[in-house]
Amino acid sequence: MSGSGNLMDFLDEPFPDVGTYEDFHTIDWLREKSRDTDRHRKITSRSKESVWEFIKGLLDAWSGWVVMLLIGLLAGTLAGVIDLAVDWMTDLKEGICLSAFWYSHEQCCWTSSETTFEDRDKCPLWQKWSELLVNRSEGASAYILNYLLYVLWALLFAFLAVSLVRVFAPYACGSGIPEIKTILSGFIIRGYLGKWTLLIKTVTLVLVVSSGLSLGKEGPLVHVACCCGNFFSSLFSKYSKNEGKRREVLSAAAAAGVSVAFGAPIGGVLFSLEEVSYYFPLKTLWRSFFAALVAAFTLRSINPFGNSRLVLFYVEYHTPWYMAELFPFILLGVFGGLWGTLFIRCNIAWCRRRKTTSLGKYPVLEVIAVTAITAIVAYPNPYTRQSTSELISELFNDCGALESSQLCDYINDPNMTRPVDDIPDRPAGRGVYTAMWQLALALVFKIVITIFTFGMKIPSGLFIPSMAVGAMAGRMVGIGVEQLAYHHHDWIIFRNWCRPGADCVTPGLYAMVGAAACLGGVTRMTVSLVVIMFELTGGLEYIVPLMAAAVTSKWVADAFGKEGIYEAHIHLNGYPFLDVKDEFTHRTLATDVMRPRRGEPPLAVLTQDSMTVEDVETLIKETDYNGFPVVVSRDSERLIGFAQRRELILAIRDFLASSQRRMF
Amino acid sequence: MSGSGNLMDFLDEPFPDVGTYEDFHTIDWLREKSRDTDRHRKITSRSKESVWEFIKGLLDAWSGWVVMLLIGLLAGTLAGVIDLAVDWMTDLKEGICLSAFWYSHEQCCWTSSETTFEDRDKCPLWQKWSELLVNRSEGASAYILNYLLYVLWALLFAFLAVSLVRVFAPYACGSGIPEIKTILSGFIIRGYLGKWTLLIKTVTLVLVVSSGLSLGKEGPLVHVACCCGNFFSSLFSKYSKNEGKRREVLSAAAAAGVSVAFGAPIGGVLFSLEEVSYYFPLKTLWRSFFAALVAAFTLRSINPFGNSRLVLFYVEYHTPWYMAELFPFILLGVFGGLWGTLFIRCNIAWCRRRKTTSLGKYPVLEVIAVTAITAIVAYPNPYTRQSTSELISELFNDCGALESSQLCDYINDPNMTRPVDDIPDRPAGRGVYTAMWQLALALVFKIVITIFTFGMKIPSGLFIPSMAVGAMAGRMVGIGVEQLAYHHHDWIIFRNWCRPGADCVTPGLYAMVGAAACLGGVTRMTVSLVVIMFELTGGLEYIVPLMAAAVTSKWVADAFGKEGIYEAHIHLNGYPFLDVKDEFTHRTLATDVMRPRRGEPPLAVLTQDSMTVEDVETLIKETDYNGFPVVVSRDSERLIGFAQRRELILAIRDFLASSQRRMF
Repeated sequence: MSGSGNLMDFLDEPFPDVGTYEDFHTIDWLREKSRDTDRHRKITSRSKESVWEFIKGLLDAWSGWVVMLLIGLLAGTLAGVIDLAVDWMTDLKEGICLSAFWYSHEQCCWTSSETTFEDRDKCPLWQKWSELLVNRSEGASAYILNYLLYVLWALLFAFLAVSLVRVFAPYACGSGIPEIKTILSGFIIRGYLGKWTLLIKTVTLVLVVSSGLSLGKEGPLVHVACCCGNFFSSLFSKYSKNEGKRREVLSAAAAAGVSVAFGAPIGGVLFSLEEVSYYFPLKTLWRSFFAALVAAFTLRSINPFGNSRLVLFYVEYHTPWYMAELFPFILLGVFGGLWGTLFIRCNIAWCRRRKTTSLGKYPVLEVIAVTAITAIVAYPNPYTRQSTSELISELFNDCGALESSQLCDYINDPNMTRPVDDIPDRPAGRGVYTAMWQLALALVFKIVITIFTFGMKIPSGLFIPSMAVGAMAGRMVGIGVEQLAYHHHDWIIFRNWCRPGADCVTPGLYAMVGAAACLGGVTRMTVSLVVIMFELTGGLEYIVPLMAAAVTSKWVADAFGKEGIYEAHIHLNGYPFLDVKDEFTHRTLATDVMRPRRGEPPLAVLTQDSMTVEDVETLIKETDYNGFPVVVSRDSERLIGFAQRRELILAIRDFLASSQRRMF
Repeated sequence: MSGSGNLMDFLDEPFPDVGTYEDFHTIDWLREKSRDTDRHRKITSRSKESVWEFIKGLLDAWSGWVVMLLIGLLAGTLAGVIDLAVDWMTDLKEGICLSAFWYSHEQCCWTSSETTFEDRDKCPLWQKWSELLVNRSEGASAYILNYLLYVLWALLFAFLAVSLVRVFAPYACGSGIPEIKTILSGFIIRGYLGKWTLLIKTVTLVLVVSSGLSLGKEGPLVHVACCCGNFFSSLFSKYSKNEGKRREVLSAAAAAGVSVAFGAPIGGVLFSLEEVSYYFPLKTLWRSFFAALVAAFTLRSINPFGNSRLVLFYVEYHTPWYMAELFPFILLGVFGGLWGTLFIRCNIAWCRRRKTTSLGKYPVLEVIAVTAITAIVAYPNPYTRQSTSELISELFNDCGALESSQLCDYINDPNMTRPVDDIPDRPAGRGVYTAMWQLALALVFKIVITIFTFGMKIPSGLFIPSMAVGAMAGRMVGIGVEQLAYHHHDWIIFRNWCRPGADCVTPGLYAMVGAAACLGGVTRMTVSLVVIMFELTGGLEYIVPLMAAAVTSKWVADAFGKEGIYEAHIHLNGYPFLDVKDEFTHRTLATDVMRPRRGEPPLAVLTQDSMTVEDVETLIKETDYNGFPVVVSRDSERLIGFAQRRELILAIRDFLASSQRRMF
């Protein structure tokens, strides 16, 4: 036993580089697993020897949880900082706070004394650029000045972002989720999760989101969290030396990323499980939970949204939904599926064009052009000028009595003396009709511009734009159904559940369902999508509508093509990715199918019995295979193992070096 | 291909009984898996033949979701009915509603006009037994009459329950979770999940919970849900003919059971994953979610708690927790671990005594005796008289301004003019001190009586009694810390976070943490416990205290013995159970360890080349092994398969029958 133990020690970590992989190679999961079992066994047997070794064993067992804690803390902190910075810089495009320039509009007016309801957005400390520069807040010239500065700030942010990405960290662009899926499935992309990528992605994410481009920060936050995971796992030899174990940490980090992106810890774990992970044992599930909870808790302590809620879009609806409403919900599901298909086809076509034509040579120019178009078209329409997450939040909202939004401009019955919470359906006012037009324009604009935005050389997430598209369509459908129900109480479809003077239709719920449908159409998530949506909004009652829309959307989109946007981008980039969810039901044996082609040399193998070092060197020189099967002998070709080319080269080099040393 | 296809068809389902297992045998997971793959492949290839087959294929693919839907609906409905019935029968022990005898106390007084705050429990329609029978509500004789009737009702309920279990469904006793764990790990116990068990367990569960015994309905609800799962899976050949697939359905049903028991759909899935399941693929995870959500939604529609919330113990605390409080939380964790160990040791010792001595011959008498003692001791103390879940709810509650409970009898500062929500720490009044004494007595009583209750021949769950023990201990610790902090603001441990006049300590939170600790000590759950606790109470902020207590409790309890209560009962009953979470790190090969003992006959095998039917029959007759390895020949003993004894017998019998048929 001790002899074989020594041999094993020798074989385990003989040279510094053995056991690592080359860039753009795929790891050997089984080998990593067995190496970890060996390591574990060694620690267990050693821990009986002395107290110190026992403590070392305990520390090793706990290091997984420590890594999770650290990932959660850092990911939560980064997400909080990004949120605060985005808030400030988005407002910087419109004006500045006189009392402290680092305050966002909202923070600036918190301390203001004029906090009556109408003036909450107009406090003297917050000045629009036109007020500050030419001392005018109204009129055409002020509008043009503000417009100009809005576009200029957007261009500045976008230019900074794309330059930083190009110069310091080319891997920081995109959403990162396709690459993370590939990495988690066992591929090696060095530097993709490095410290520079982390730093640059965090900074540029703030810049691009603030610039008002049609993109979100959710996908990139997953990449940022995975960079944190990679950083912390490099501190512990258990993870840094084992690519398999490292991927367990990364899976958990992805969960933490979604957890802070949406304030949805459970949805984050399920997203990691359903969407990005490849190998996800039970232990990783618990650790992911822990990391996601710590991250959510950290973000909540920072409290970037200022309302002590974790969720972005907290909604509270006052009415239940009715069975008859399932029909428009399913229609929204169909819309989501169609939009998903359209988006994926067009976006992939455009990205392919970028790769193959000279368009790809001018990434800075492309970003500048798209930003300019976005800013110029977005400013005049209030629904595109505000940040996309504010837009979604407004669309999700139910119209309470105190709501001042244009979307809630209904004609009130003057005789109404009802409690504030329970407002019946009312006829739409002028504001609502204006809002419908503006929303329709915004919808078309978002649909078009997002296709061109996703895939540029800047960090860009898809979740928020997809949800915005769905929320806009949903809200419009919702208002339509509401007005139909109000004006046609006697129609047979409304008669059973919608009496005059009742509050039957909640347009905000339609927006929520639409958002889920569009997100589902693009990403093809199902259960994790529904969980994220209800953690995002806090309503367990709406699971059936959400599920109906998500499933319909997936069906419709799958009918046109099985690939979600992430798989499509993986294929576009040519990464070797084998989906763990694909089912293979072949029954043919490999021996029946595989035969050496005629006229070709026989299989290059290592034999156990009679190979000299020279033979091995010749084999390595003459072939360019990545590894060689080891067989008993040329006569009896029974497989006993597999040796990688890289490891053979390392072993021979090291052997020669040590034998030279012995000679002198 | 077609030839082998036919052969495969022939081999697949040749005789009705092949592929099923005998009672108290273990299933072959790999075989079940490969049979399902075959079935799947057959359906896929057939679905290309005709539209009808294609539709059949679609229906087959969707049958899993349909089963989940049905399980969710039935489990939710049963849970709702049980809750309503328990409510009514618990109140029946004290009195009756005059307007409608099927109303519980609360329902009876809803319609009452005297709904002022003080009189909400005293409405004329609800009459205590003494009021109804002798027209007196006060005085010693009324008290004694009420006491007597309380005990008599309890005895009646318990007697009915134990008789029903004995006569109709002996498997309906206990919590059922140890057996379900065993079944899910691949063991066959016929009838354990049958229709009779379902019916009797549902009825007797209502009876025993109403009788006031120290037990909960949560564990048995998991059993009930699994019975539903078994029932519905027997309707679909995909599940009824494949024991492996059936277990996937049962795992999901267990999740639905916990989901309705605690109103915690996500906690339910995690409980199924962490605690009971053995084989839990990703697909099952999604289905479990769906079943759990449908069940929760159904229960919510029935709305048994009358507050449109799904959760049993919804709490809202007004203050955060402080780092220094982690110390008492960890102390509660230690208490939970110790109580868990004590409970498991004593309960197992008592159950072993029941099995080995004549005590086990009189189960009815035992139940009657324990019920009598419980009822007699419980009535005088208000904390044991009320139902255990009400007790937990009261202990978890924060003392608001409107709270009339004895536990909230603090001395108010008459000059205080604060808002209702923000009540500072106050000195305890007489009521609190009385409550402390009563709680201490109730704690001792609960600890002792639960040991004797769990394991009797009635349905009995452990979750609620464990949580009650922890909540009582926690509340007492919480009140202690609160009073310490109030009277000693200047102590160094309080100085930093607890100023005079501030609301720093929430005793309800301590009760919650204590409940988690005790539940963790008994069951050794960790993550699912924390998720259940926060779904149960609705507070994401308290994850850190809950986690700290749960982890401490698990550590302390594990130090005294690795087995949780369910594993202990599995071993006590001698079920063959191999925990999927155990890690085996042996490296020795089986060939090095296993050698035929001298003087024994050689291994009984089937050979592929030269065995006649007679040889096989002789082999079956002469040995009593459960199955035989199939080898190439006696000379080259290369293993090519394994044949089960039962299947051999069936195959030979069927072969003889068909050859006889052919002869005539």
